[in-house]
Amino acid sequence: MDAKLAERCEGWLVEIQDHLRDELLPFWLGRGVDSEHGGFLTYFDRDGRATGETVKTLVGQTRMVFTFSSMYRAGFAQDKALSIAQGGVEFLIDHFWDEQHGGWFWTTERDGSPLNESKIGYGHSFAMYALSEYGMASGDLRGMEWAVKTFETFQSLAADNLNGGYYEFCERDWTKKAPGRKGGDRKSLDVHMHLMEAFTNLYEATGAQIYHDKTREMIGLISCRMLHPEYGTGIAQFTPDWTPQREIIVDDFWGADRHAGDPEGRPLDNTSYGRNVEYAWLLAHAVKLLDLDVNTYRQPIQKLYDHCLAYGIDYERGGVYSEGPHAGPARDKNKEFWQQAEALVGLLDAHILLDDEKYLDGYQKVHRFVFDHVINHEVGEWFPLFDEQNVLLRDDMAHAWKTNFHTVRSMIQSEARLLKILI
Amino acid sequence: MDAKLAERCEGWLVEIQDHLRDELLPFWLGRGVDSEHGGFLTYFDRDGRATGETVKTLVGQTRMVFTFSSMYRAGFAQDKALSIAQGGVEFLIDHFWDEQHGGWFWTTERDGSPLNESKIGYGHSFAMYALSEYGMASGDLRGMEWAVKTFETFQSLAADNLNGGYYEFCERDWTKKAPGRKGGDRKSLDVHMHLMEAFTNLYEATGAQIYHDKTREMIGLISCRMLHPEYGTGIAQFTPDWTPQREIIVDDFWGADRHAGDPEGRPLDNTSYGRNVEYAWLLAHAVKLLDLDVNTYRQPIQKLYDHCLAYGIDYERGGVYSEGPHAGPARDKNKEFWQQAEALVGLLDAHILLDDEKYLDGYQKVHRFVFDHVINHEVGEWFPLFDEQNVLLRDDMAHAWKTNFHTVRSMIQSEARLLKILI
Repeated sequence: MDAKLAERCEGWLVEIQDHLRDELLPFWLGRGVDSEHGGFLTYFDRDGRATGETVKTLVGQTRMVFTFSSMYRAGFAQDKALSIAQGGVEFLIDHFWDEQHGGWFWTTERDGSPLNESKIGYGHSFAMYALSEYGMASGDLRGMEWAVKTFETFQSLAADNLNGGYYEFCERDWTKKAPGRKGGDRKSLDVHMHLMEAFTNLYEATGAQIYHDKTREMIGLISCRMLHPEYGTGIAQFTPDWTPQREIIVDDFWGADRHAGDPEGRPLDNTSYGRNVEYAWLLAHAVKLLDLDVNTYRQPIQKLYDHCLAYGIDYERGGVYSEGPHAGPARDKNKEFWQQAEALVGLLDAHILLDDEKYLDGYQKVHRFVFDHVINHEVGEWFPLFDEQNVLLRDDMAHAWKTNFHTVRSMIQSEARLLKILI
Repeated sequence: MDAKLAERCEGWLVEIQDHLRDELLPFWLGRGVDSEHGGFLTYFDRDGRATGETVKTLVGQTRMVFTFSSMYRAGFAQDKALSIAQGGVEFLIDHFWDEQHGGWFWTTERDGSPLNESKIGYGHSFAMYALSEYGMASGDLRGMEWAVKTFETFQSLAADNLNGGYYEFCERDWTKKAPGRKGGDRKSLDVHMHLMEAFTNLYEATGAQIYHDKTREMIGLISCRMLHPEYGTGIAQFTPDWTPQREIIVDDFWGADRHAGDPEGRPLDNTSYGRNVEYAWLLAHAVKLLDLDVNTYRQPIQKLYDHCLAYGIDYERGGVYSEGPHAGPARDKNKEFWQQAEALVGLLDAHILLDDEKYLDGYQKVHRFVFDHVINHEVGEWFPLFDEQNVLLRDDMAHAWKTNFHTVRSMIQSEARLLKILI
């Protein structure tokens, strides 16, 4: 391969390997396990000290389980990662599962007492993703048993057999929540993308045709309903019958650190660079695992990456912006940690799939921003939010939903892709 | 009420009551139970003698369970009906349930050994319908337990979360069957109507919101996708994404007694009078049970009945024809027993809902044909098929799918409606 290209990739690889091994993994291996009650504590300030916040969230707990399991599968911390993941799985089963109505509670107290008993689609997608990852990592039959139980419960109680897809916001007894800010009448790309990701993992873990089918159904649904018909970029929110809506922040969800601006929600002409590229690489991963014809998906994937390159990258100061219109310059130029994390994996994947170094040029802008600004090297994790000028807007290392998920996955997946490019 | 109207209704009522009590119920109470192996034997010749055929079908067994349960609920044969139904339920659970892959086999030998292990949507809708009816009749918890288990299995393994609705023809392990004559790429009004009917019964039995939702989803799906956009009449078959198709007879299904004519299937411009009116009264029943606003449904229901009155009734010789175009005179003028049975219930329902005696005039044409030609009064059951001239084409009293379902239900439901009109 081209010597200059190899040199660039090797430089990035070393930075990633060092960060992953010497900063990120030690940060999490030394923290997070709640040795008193089980499960995880996921609130740390900029110095990595516990903030005292102790609410446990379904997303936080399942993401921790996913990450420690994936860490083990990738060959890291094999003396500890699996037993940590196992503790998380046991806490989930013991405290988050609703024996009466089925499904997982949304939040609990530190000791596992149910707090918010709602049944939220986003959390259920991560339960399937994490439990199947734990099952593959450990061989512990409980992993697949509960992943499948989650699928069957969610499929039985949240599917929309009229319009396709799934309802996302339900009460404890799985009745749909009220419309509007309660989310009962909203469907999202976010949740359906994570369902695609979860079903892909269920298929990898079981080889069962039903998960192959479900993954394809989510790919088809996103393609037909949730991407802009001309630009191919993601649309965030919909009515149950797939009419695009202005994206609102729904109760029982996060978003306080994102600037919705207008209380009516974000503009209708709006797309998220980070979600687009995350979807693109998750789709490519699913296509490969399901043994589908990659040629069918090359063009739609390219549209997502090219839109990000054209409008999402800050070529001057580095990093990827948050959101903007389906065509034209970015509107929300804040830079969120998770969008950086997904852009790193995605832009390397784009180069591998589409064989064009322009994606590596984009990658470089994000990589340098991450390693020079986002990572809190002394502590080990990533700062969550910057403005356009790279001024830090929030500085906590972890909270209810910012765990080790995006950061560790990004480093593990980026390392694997750089090695693939280099070999 | 009008004395002349009362006189007409009273005349019909007496005929129905006499037939039900003195012919139809005795026919079935004296036959059908397989005292050797359990379950039911459902093959009888024109004299009501067992033909020697012994294959047990999911549809045949579940329909027998439904009918004996509904008989009990309607106050008939209360010393026998429930224990007969119970025997049927036990045979189903013991022999038809697939412990390995979940779901119900399609056919078994007389002793319950699996024969055709396919998983067919039509059969699963009847399992839900019959088991919930048995549960309501008996209070036996196994009824609801297995009805719910059927729902959860079917919902988990046969739903199409991309296009809405359900796949209908699966292999034993629930992988979709091949396309075309194997049915793997076909969706039908028939199955989705019976799912609506089954979900309605599950809702009546449990009061659970999920079955309210599922019933509404099926109503919405049929309204949006499966009725002719202009005429409001039913379209029989579709691709998975709801493109209407010429109706073909699928393997693992019946239809040998229906004349498909062209091996390419029936014409695209084709609708079934009997299925339209069956759907109309089942819809009105669901609307009432779900406590929906009947005004929303009055016009679409009227279209179905008025189409039947305009083109489906043989005003000269009596009875209702089989099939014809969405607008214009009937094409297939054979007269099937089940279409007569559903037209009786439907046309009385139409009069009650729409308050127009023209439906009773139509009813009269069907009623006289049924009582003067279709019923084999000496034996007790109905002949299955006549041509346009009322010449008998088939004369068996029961077979794999012609059990007591349409006939007994028609008489019980028609009696109830006539009493309602008269009171």
